Amino acid sequence: MAAACIFCKIIKGEIPSMKLFESDKTFAFLDINPLSKGHALVIPKHHGEKLTDIPDDSLAELLPVAKKIALAAGAENFNILQNNGRIAHQVVDHVHVHMIPKPNETEGLGVGWPSQNVNKEKLQQLLEEIKAKM
Amino acid sequence: MAAACIFCKIIKGEIPSMKLFESDKTFAFLDINPLSKGHALVIPKHHGEKLTDIPDDSLAELLPVAKKIALAAGAENFNILQNNGRIAHQVVDHVHVHMIPKPNETEGLGVGWPSQNVNKEKLQQLLEEIKAKM
Repeated sequence: MAAACIFCKIIKGEIPSMKLFESDKTFAFLDINPLSKGHALVIPKHHGEKLTDIPDDSLAELLPVAKKIALAAGAENFNILQNNGRIAHQVVDHVHVHMIPKPNETEGLGVGWPSQNVNKEKLQQLLEEIKAKM
Repeated sequence: MAAACIFCKIIKGEIPSMKLFESDKTFAFLDINPLSKGHALVIPKHHGEKLTDIPDDSLAELLPVAKKIALAAGAENFNILQNNGRIAHQVVDHVHVHMIPKPNETEGLGVGWPSQNVNKEKLQQLLEEIKAKM
């Protein structure tokens, strides 16, 4: 828990939330500024800024809970998004997984996809570099 | 496994891939049309089109593996994205979690955020509707 973190306060009940789900490790609630109807957040109770700061056992439940909410919300098409860092659109520094229904073109997440053409040899080299660190 | 699915073929080794990781339930590889350097895909071996089609035990490992790759790739800022449905930007109909490094404004995922102002009473009503189905 981080004293100044708004999501830690929500978990502790110090700030009210539209709570959907709670377990030992996980908390979920509706986003009060949704991108679409049913937009929800699933967060680990373990405080950490980025995905890389959260223990695996706290990460494991996030997608199953997002799935549970997507089903209950009747979301047929939807995006799961988790942002790390200001430049990657993260606003609150406590890991949160968005479940954002995509009912039509205008509502829900907007996705920009600037794909690159990469030389296969360069990609193979990168692969070896990353694998060496895993 | 689905015979015509390109990701099932990658898992079986029938189509080569830039493989980063493999376990009983999970497979991960570099995206060959990356949005940024280190863009990787983490997929469950269990074939299913959408998040809601995948058993919880196959979902549980996806974020821990994405985290492992983000760390190995040295991604400081990055987006985790999983799309469900054509309108939500899904292209291959086998669940896949993108780990997309965000090194600068132009490379990596573009995020559009059309947030809505919603009446608190309507949100409370929606909350009760969703909770009743969970």
